[in-house]
Amino acid sequence: MDQQLKEWDRIIIGIDPGTNVMGYGVLGIKHHKPALIAMGVILLSKFDDHYMRLRRISERVSGLVEQYLPDEMALEAPFYGKNVQSMLKLGRAQGVAMAAALVHDIPISEYAPLKVKQAITGNGGASKEQVAEMLRRNLNIPKESIDPHLDATDALGVALCHFYESAKPKTAKTCSSWKEFIAKNPDKVK
Amino acid sequence: MDQQLKEWDRIIIGIDPGTNVMGYGVLGIKHHKPALIAMGVILLSKFDDHYMRLRRISERVSGLVEQYLPDEMALEAPFYGKNVQSMLKLGRAQGVAMAAALVHDIPISEYAPLKVKQAITGNGGASKEQVAEMLRRNLNIPKESIDPHLDATDALGVALCHFYESAKPKTAKTCSSWKEFIAKNPDKVK
Repeated sequence: MDQQLKEWDRIIIGIDPGTNVMGYGVLGIKHHKPALIAMGVILLSKFDDHYMRLRRISERVSGLVEQYLPDEMALEAPFYGKNVQSMLKLGRAQGVAMAAALVHDIPISEYAPLKVKQAITGNGGASKEQVAEMLRRNLNIPKESIDPHLDATDALGVALCHFYESAKPKTAKTCSSWKEFIAKNPDKVK
Repeated sequence: MDQQLKEWDRIIIGIDPGTNVMGYGVLGIKHHKPALIAMGVILLSKFDDHYMRLRRISERVSGLVEQYLPDEMALEAPFYGKNVQSMLKLGRAQGVAMAAALVHDIPISEYAPLKVKQAITGNGGASKEQVAEMLRRNLNIPKESIDPHLDATDALGVALCHFYESAKPKTAKTCSSWKEFIAKNPDKVK
């Protein structure tokens, strides 16, 4: 294990899976304080082929898991989408990314985009730019180190959201389950 | 490598992914003739938790890939479903199963259920029982060896369908792409 990684009490990898761009953010926790370890994007749009994209996700997410040895994975996961085709494709992209954690017995938590924005900025309707700016301030990231791809900051956001959620007392923990979502949003279930 | 597996010219693993039961069938090809190597099911309904199901799929499909060292994976994949929630879950199950092939650079082909039934029985509207009976006859499987779970025979069916399709001249090869499906089935795209 990398000596620098050993210094962290806990490492969280955040993933914002998409079929065109997949963002990732790696957060280190030390003495209950979060800090940026790495963030970036996996560009998929250059591959026309659906399998090539899935293979790329598999290679890169497995690589990140082996490089940073995270203790937990946090996934930004919308619970609904435009149509069944796009949801199946998104589900596959998520499944391939999740498999990289599952094979290493890394627990996975997922958060809806609104939940992430709310946790980071206090406003569920915040823009990606606002999320990036709040992350920069909260994690003391120099402006020049912010990845211009907002998918990277979104992924870092879900990792930080997971840190905040896991720090809450168990009884207050918000559980992003299907059942709960469906119960709360009957109009979004077709 | 297992001495018995070495005897095959080519090994195809067929997967019929579901969120309650996942079927698998392993087909060996020797001198252009297909034969049954193994088939069975991965029962998922005993796990209430979605992640436990995905972990189980990951473990078992990875195990099958490492045990039988298939050259190709064939996936039975519906292109549409009841609702976006169920498609996202199915996509995740498929993605986790596909990841087991992707990490070993095993090419994946997918076939719609109608295509599999047509390839095996000549009738796209055939029942699961008819598919099982045709497989039994075509592969000379003793009646007592047929897995009572029809998800297992369905998975063996998609492996055999892939063998038939790959044996066709390239120009006649049916490509089960999204674009082609959408072009052919405009009424099924919502």
